[in-house]
Amino acid sequence: MAQLVRVQNFNVSRDGIGAGEDQTLERPFGHVDPERLFSWAGATASWPMRTEPGGSRGLDDYLTRDYARNIGAEIMGRNKFGPQRGPWQDHEWQGWWGDEPPFRTPVFVLTHHARPSITLSDTTFHFVEGDPASVLEQAKEAADGKDVRVGGGATTIRQFLDADLVDTLHIAVSPVELGSGVRLWESPDELLDRFHLDVVPSPSGVVHHLFWRR
Amino acid sequence: MAQLVRVQNFNVSRDGIGAGEDQTLERPFGHVDPERLFSWAGATASWPMRTEPGGSRGLDDYLTRDYARNIGAEIMGRNKFGPQRGPWQDHEWQGWWGDEPPFRTPVFVLTHHARPSITLSDTTFHFVEGDPASVLEQAKEAADGKDVRVGGGATTIRQFLDADLVDTLHIAVSPVELGSGVRLWESPDELLDRFHLDVVPSPSGVVHHLFWRR
Repeated sequence: MAQLVRVQNFNVSRDGIGAGEDQTLERPFGHVDPERLFSWAGATASWPMRTEPGGSRGLDDYLTRDYARNIGAEIMGRNKFGPQRGPWQDHEWQGWWGDEPPFRTPVFVLTHHARPSITLSDTTFHFVEGDPASVLEQAKEAADGKDVRVGGGATTIRQFLDADLVDTLHIAVSPVELGSGVRLWESPDELLDRFHLDVVPSPSGVVHHLFWRR
Repeated sequence: MAQLVRVQNFNVSRDGIGAGEDQTLERPFGHVDPERLFSWAGATASWPMRTEPGGSRGLDDYLTRDYARNIGAEIMGRNKFGPQRGPWQDHEWQGWWGDEPPFRTPVFVLTHHARPSITLSDTTFHFVEGDPASVLEQAKEAADGKDVRVGGGATTIRQFLDADLVDTLHIAVSPVELGSGVRLWESPDELLDRFHLDVVPSPSGVVHHLFWRR
C-alpha cells in the first residue's frame, strides 16, 4: 500500500473559512466560535477528543473514525500549535493540546524559529523549517510506512496543495457563514482539475467533501 | 471501548434480497449475478479482495475500508462457506474462499454437522452449533477484545437481529430488483424501533444504510 498524504476531518464554513481573525491564547479560532464548525464531530462515538462513552455511529462517525487510521505522523502550521508570532519567548508553554494531545504520533510544526522537541504522552512535537516537500520527507520517514496527515490550518493545507503533495482530502463544510478569516477556498471546484470529488450531505447538516487524485 | 457486534458491507437489492435461490457450487448466489450487487465495492481502493492497485477513495471507500477495522472474529452461516446441505461428505473441499480468505481472523461457521477446523493463511474456520448467544460468546472470546462481524448471509443476520445481539449495521442497497431469494427485510424501517438510521446515497448508485442502537 502506498504511503498517502491525507487531509482528514478539516472543517470550513460554507464560505470556505477554516478559522477566524485575531487569534489569541484564549481564542485559538479568533473571532469564530469553533463549536459552530465542529459540533457535528463532537457528537460522534469516534471523535478523538471524546471523554465520555456514547455518541452516534452513523455517517459522521465513519468520517471521524478515519482520523487516526493508519496515520504515522502529522504536519501542522505553527498557529495550530499556539498563537505566538516571531521567536519563541516561553518554552514552558507547551501548546494548546494539553497533556494528552490527540495526535499520538510525531507532529512536525512549521516555524521559522527553532525550539527543542516536546513529548507529551504519545505525541512528540518537532519544530521544523523548510519548504513543504522537505518537511514532508521528514514526516514520511517518521511515519514509518504509514500515512502522513496534513493537519491544517487552512494556510498550511493550501501550501501543500499548491506544491501538489496531497493525495486525499476530507473537508467537512459546516452550515455556517463566517464572512472573513483564514480561507481554504473560494469553492471546492478549484480542486476538480486534479481530484475526484464525492459531495456527501450528512443528516447533521455538514456536507462532507471527499477528494482523491485523478 | 466496548466490544461491538457489527454487520459490515452486507449487500441487498432494492427489494431487500441478499442472495438468490438454488445455490450451487458454481453459483454461490444462486440465480443472482453477484456483480449486480457488489460492483460498487469492487471499484474501491480498500475492497479486501482487490488484487490490483488503484480504485476510488470517496464515500464508498470509507465504507469498504471499515470492513476489517478492529474486527477480531466473524460469524457466518453455513451457506456462506459452501453449498452443501446435511452431513459433510468431503473434507477435502475447503470452502469458497480460496487459499487466502479475506477474513484474516477466526471464523465461526454455523452448522448442525461437526467437522475439524480449517486454517487457510490468516483465517481459521471453526464449525459450531448452538443458538446465536452461545456462538457469539465463543466469537467474542476469540476476538480478544476486538469487535465481532456477523458476516451473513441474510438468514444469519436475521437470527442475530431477532436475538437482539447486533450493535451496528452497514447495509448497502444496490440499484437492482431481484424479485425472489433470501430476504433480509421487507423495508429498513423494520429496524427503526431499536436503531438510529442514516440513509446515505452514494454517487455510485448504492444507498448506504448505517444503523446503530438507540
